[in-house]
Amino acid sequence: MGGSTFGRVFQIHSFGESHGKAMGVVIDGCPSGVKFSLTQLQEFVNRRRPGFSPFSSKRKEADQVELLSGVYEGYTLGTPIALLVYNQDARSSDYDEIKKKPRPGHADDVWKVKYKHTDHRGGGRASARETLSRVMAGAVAKMLIQSLQPKLNVFSFIKSIGLFEISSAATQAIMQHPSPKKELEKLDLAIPDKECLEKVKKLLGDAGVSGESYGGVVQLVVRGLPAGLGQPVFHKLKADLALALLSIGSTVGLEFGDGFKISSERGSEFHSLQQQHNYAGLRGGISTGEAMVVKIAFKPVSSVGAVARNGRHDPCVLQRALPIVESMVLLSIADHLLSCRLDKV
Amino acid sequence: MGGSTFGRVFQIHSFGESHGKAMGVVIDGCPSGVKFSLTQLQEFVNRRRPGFSPFSSKRKEADQVELLSGVYEGYTLGTPIALLVYNQDARSSDYDEIKKKPRPGHADDVWKVKYKHTDHRGGGRASARETLSRVMAGAVAKMLIQSLQPKLNVFSFIKSIGLFEISSAATQAIMQHPSPKKELEKLDLAIPDKECLEKVKKLLGDAGVSGESYGGVVQLVVRGLPAGLGQPVFHKLKADLALALLSIGSTVGLEFGDGFKISSERGSEFHSLQQQHNYAGLRGGISTGEAMVVKIAFKPVSSVGAVARNGRHDPCVLQRALPIVESMVLLSIADHLLSCRLDKV
Amino acid sequence: MGGSTFGRVFQIHSFGESHGKAMGVVIDGCPSGVKFSLTQLQEFVNRRRPGFSPFSSKRKEADQVELLSGVYEGYTLGTPIALLVYNQDARSSDYDEIKKKPRPGHADDVWKVKYKHTDHRGGGRASARETLSRVMAGAVAKMLIQSLQPKLNVFSFIKSIGLFEISSAATQAIMQHPSPKKELEKLDLAIPDKECLEKVKKLLGDAGVSGESYGGVVQLVVRGLPAGLGQPVFHKLKADLALALLSIGSTVGLEFGDGFKISSERGSEFHSLQQQHNYAGLRGGISTGEAMVVKIAFKPVSSVGAVARNGRHDPCVLQRALPIVESMVLLSIADHLLSCRLDKV
Amino acid sequence: MGGSTFGRVFQIHSFGESHGKAMGVVIDGCPSGVKFSLTQLQEFVNRRRPGFSPFSSKRKEADQVELLSGVYEGYTLGTPIALLVYNQDARSSDYDEIKKKPRPGHADDVWKVKYKHTDHRGGGRASARETLSRVMAGAVAKMLIQSLQPKLNVFSFIKSIGLFEISSAATQAIMQHPSPKKELEKLDLAIPDKECLEKVKKLLGDAGVSGESYGGVVQLVVRGLPAGLGQPVFHKLKADLALALLSIGSTVGLEFGDGFKISSERGSEFHSLQQQHNYAGLRGGISTGEAMVVKIAFKPVSSVGAVARNGRHDPCVLQRALPIVESMVLLSIADHLLSCRLDKV
Repeated sequence: MGGSTFGRVFQIHSFGESHGKAMGVVIDGCPSGVKFSLTQLQEFVNRRRPGFSPFSSKRKEADQVELLSGVYEGYTLGTPIALLVYNQDARSSDYDEIKKKPRPGHADDVWKVKYKHTDHRGGGRASARETLSRVMAGAVAKMLIQSLQPKLNVFSFIKSIGLFEISSAATQAIMQHPSPKKELEKLDLAIPDKECLEKVKKLLGDAGVSGESYGGVVQLVVRGLPAGLGQPVFHKLKADLALALLSIGSTVGLEFGDGFKISSERGSEFHSLQQQHNYAGLRGGISTGEAMVVKIAFKPVSSVGAVARNGRHDPCVLQRALPIVESMVLLSIADHLLSCRLDKV
Repeated sequence: MGGSTFGRVFQIHSFGESHGKAMGVVIDGCPSGVKFSLTQLQEFVNRRRPGFSPFSSKRKEADQVELLSGVYEGYTLGTPIALLVYNQDARSSDYDEIKKKPRPGHADDVWKVKYKHTDHRGGGRASARETLSRVMAGAVAKMLIQSLQPKLNVFSFIKSIGLFEISSAATQAIMQHPSPKKELEKLDLAIPDKECLEKVKKLLGDAGVSGESYGGVVQLVVRGLPAGLGQPVFHKLKADLALALLSIGSTVGLEFGDGFKISSERGSEFHSLQQQHNYAGLRGGISTGEAMVVKIAFKPVSSVGAVARNGRHDPCVLQRALPIVESMVLLSIADHLLSCRLDKV
Repeated sequence: MGGSTFGRVFQIHSFGESHGKAMGVVIDGCPSGVKFSLTQLQEFVNRRRPGFSPFSSKRKEADQVELLSGVYEGYTLGTPIALLVYNQDARSSDYDEIKKKPRPGHADDVWKVKYKHTDHRGGGRASARETLSRVMAGAVAKMLIQSLQPKLNVFSFIKSIGLFEISSAATQAIMQHPSPKKELEKLDLAIPDKECLEKVKKLLGDAGVSGESYGGVVQLVVRGLPAGLGQPVFHKLKADLALALLSIGSTVGLEFGDGFKISSERGSEFHSLQQQHNYAGLRGGISTGEAMVVKIAFKPVSSVGAVARNGRHDPCVLQRALPIVESMVLLSIADHLLSCRLDKV
Repeated sequence: MGGSTFGRVFQIHSFGESHGKAMGVVIDGCPSGVKFSLTQLQEFVNRRRPGFSPFSSKRKEADQVELLSGVYEGYTLGTPIALLVYNQDARSSDYDEIKKKPRPGHADDVWKVKYKHTDHRGGGRASARETLSRVMAGAVAKMLIQSLQPKLNVFSFIKSIGLFEISSAATQAIMQHPSPKKELEKLDLAIPDKECLEKVKKLLGDAGVSGESYGGVVQLVVRGLPAGLGQPVFHKLKADLALALLSIGSTVGLEFGDGFKISSERGSEFHSLQQQHNYAGLRGGISTGEAMVVKIAFKPVSSVGAVARNGRHDPCVLQRALPIVESMVLLSIADHLLSCRLDKV
């Protein structure tokens, strides 16, 4: 059964295999009258592009987005918005051996069980390239949110890679920063702690050569979220965000605020420390209007050793994951902002 | 917009306010021919009942389940299955003061923002009593799974409460146990580590008096899951389970296997240690056929101090949460078992 | 796969077998703050009751509606509204022979093919009694519409039974009448043409004795509908109404305005005669703000001959069908009124 | 709210404006392993092309279909299938005046009310060109059906145009014909009655010059349909087909078999004449396994007079509508064939 639709009102339908002809997305449910800029969308997508940071994979694709429908004279029409990127650098020959020998840690073999007939080239639809569709749609969600809640701000940074973690002080500093995105864009890697950043750069530089790989934790922050978002009981905001974020490849867990730490505390402590625990943004799974924090754990990438030898090894996906994480959260928030219009008569 | 439907194929529609007339659920999408036992369903529901363990709330309701439709001569009909429990012990007078003064940590005020008109009595639909519908439906999901995959086994236990955690040895022992459920049912609290259990009993005994409360971590295990469950890309099994579990009140995080620990490891370590990390059950977010482990973090319950004085304080919800956690996972698995029938021509 | 959900935003989930324990419906997606009256709902449901007119089946059930959730202090809460009627007069012994011998014209045998295990008593869920859930939900849709569009008026009458049809003049008179519902309620059968009414009464009186049965055409009128209802391209208002109306048992066709007549005309005629053809209410499948007319054809009921002998023969279902037809249209309009809130930013 | 998704399991998501960049469709829910031929798909689409018959609009587009995803080495992958046609002949200058002056009978003005901002060029998404997406998807539905029910045969023909109707004998002959499609393809217009065909050709030839337009009735036949298709109670096969067919522009009514005629008959007649009335294919709204007949009424096209002067007048859309009608029925049947896999345990 199909699984490429996300959202209940602001719905996106994604398609595309890594080494097929194109990747794309159709957004159905975006209202008319949203100011739309293809240039902004392209910039948003460029953040995701492999090859953007010196540490990421060498596959460099222009990923030029084509707008096919749903927009006229700079504003959305209320009709489906279709966005497309043709695949150019599809070196499927690299992947010919996979057909017989599934790669360890990849989903090749479970897809085989599931579908019997699969496209093995570059992981087919199981490839990380699939997230391009999410980011294109995320850019549109951002434009809609801009129209509805101009002060809403979604940003994310790397909290830890391997055993290196940014300090509490650095975390607080970026969370309170008046323009966190600009601040983060200045950095090679979005690690807003100079000392930690240097250590990680050294770590990943070495790993790029040795073929080692690392996971880590991404911290996502939403500021300016209105109160009352989330639909009881199965579509609480926290539940829909969990669906959104755990649908991303390599994610292995998430917590709201300091979730796991909170679970070991006494109730009397917790309730006096909610702000400090970054847990003030949710109550009963519904937004409260205060800032919301989610931390997402990523496992180390599966491509270790062998793949590194052809010079295409990316030892850590976290930098690339940031626009994907943000896109999924933007999509979920856009969906909930619209769905709340139906709450009261 | 409505949010009381869970599932895409095996769909459940839940209803009921804590102090309204009844709680119920309608299941649409259960195939015909499933052997159905109301006695078994009642037993499954009884596990959830407040008052089952000496440590839980004193509100003792019989919670007698009525079967209204969808079953005939002991087998499901393929038509909607409706299940109902009338509310009996609705002491709404206890809650009259809430109308003016929302309880700290409860969702009363965000619901007010959201809906303007709310039922304040006992939290209305935001009450934990809502989970009764989930458990009734979970029992039906279990019967369906029993027909389709008789060896599939879902069980859960308490891994930690406050700072007390069961040992690795105890964890491994229960996970490998040939009949873990029977083993766990022997215990007052499902903490399969004698030493830890004693400490927790003391902790909660004191807390019941002092009005303190505790959260903790629940570990859920699925054995006998077939490979290939989960729908790429937005309905990966891990994503749908995240939606299912984070839709439960008081949950603040989850990890698959040792997710957060895995995120701090080197790739070379991780890939040799997957089994040990309890992460073998998922690849690309799809089930592999091996055992799957999820850990869910719960915050301490919100009812601290004042509420304890009328003698109805339950210092920890984790024991009561187990059948709810299991139900949500059973529902999601039932949904995916059916949806996989549509994967191949 | 389940099929008991109707609506995309204002969703209803229906359940119940004719001779099971109860019939019911859960409405998820009704906003909070809608004035709700159980008395009004009961009156709306009473119109449907078999035994209301002298010409209908002798099965006389009180059909006392219970409200289980979703309403507090006279207003909806935005949470699911559950409504229930227990079945009382379930003479299942009457139907014991059906188990072996399916009734001609009934769906008993195709259900057997479909589900293998079925509830044969009274047709089970294939029984017309299932429409009770629709009418309960329709009454709630009406209350919502009353809040949103107080001038919107949905009414229906019998245009023909067998070969007897009301005159054009009579049709125009009732369509233009300032209070058509009151006018129609004065009549034994909602046939607003005295001459035709007398002939039909004679026809059905005879048929009640002889065991003959008749079909006919119901005409439904919506006045006060705002412009812009309907979602291109697959959920045009005309398409969703077609789904709604053809989901009713015994319906065999429908036309918007004088649809079939229009299809035989020249374009130049049609465009000058739209008003006269009662086709002004739709353009491109979307409402225009003018009155909308739908005509629904019903086949003669299947229970002929044999069944009549036990004195329970109802020779024509059209009178009973009116509140069902109106309910389905009210549900569809309620759904579209809400969904239009999402059209513009 | 979005309305461009059709189907519950075999879901299609359509997009594109008449004078935008492209028309397309994404199919999510097609199982893996279906034999796929782009050549066959192109041929199926070509039947729809304006300009195919001498009587249709002069806008001649190649409509070359691009396959973007979901198929590999000639078989579907179980992943979304995306199909695209770039718009070439987009003479938007022709339509500049419409911006100020909406065309009579077109949806331009109700779209304006609905969305405020619209694409007026060629009707934008309200254009009949939108149906290209339906036909591309219909061709895929046909391939799926071919895999699942090779003997299932869907075909359609013109029963009447204006006041000219084919004879009963001709109707019976084509319905019983061993290879009806081949027979119909021999004709300029799919009117399988020589005498009627000649009259209609004369009628439309004159109308093409005078600017007159005509509607008519299409008859659709399904042979080889298995019993048990349709989901009680709101997704009966007849209800879903009504949704499918009334979502097509210019449709104004439909009947199953001789629906409206049946409604005027006595029950005793009807039940002995079901076969003759072409009503044998449905019982309780569910397929019985016998042939099913649907008749769809189309109003005369809206483009009369003025438009004719630039030499682009098409006096009747029925010939062009045939592949669209068939596509919608194929889509609905594909959806139901899959959904029936979930009926029994």
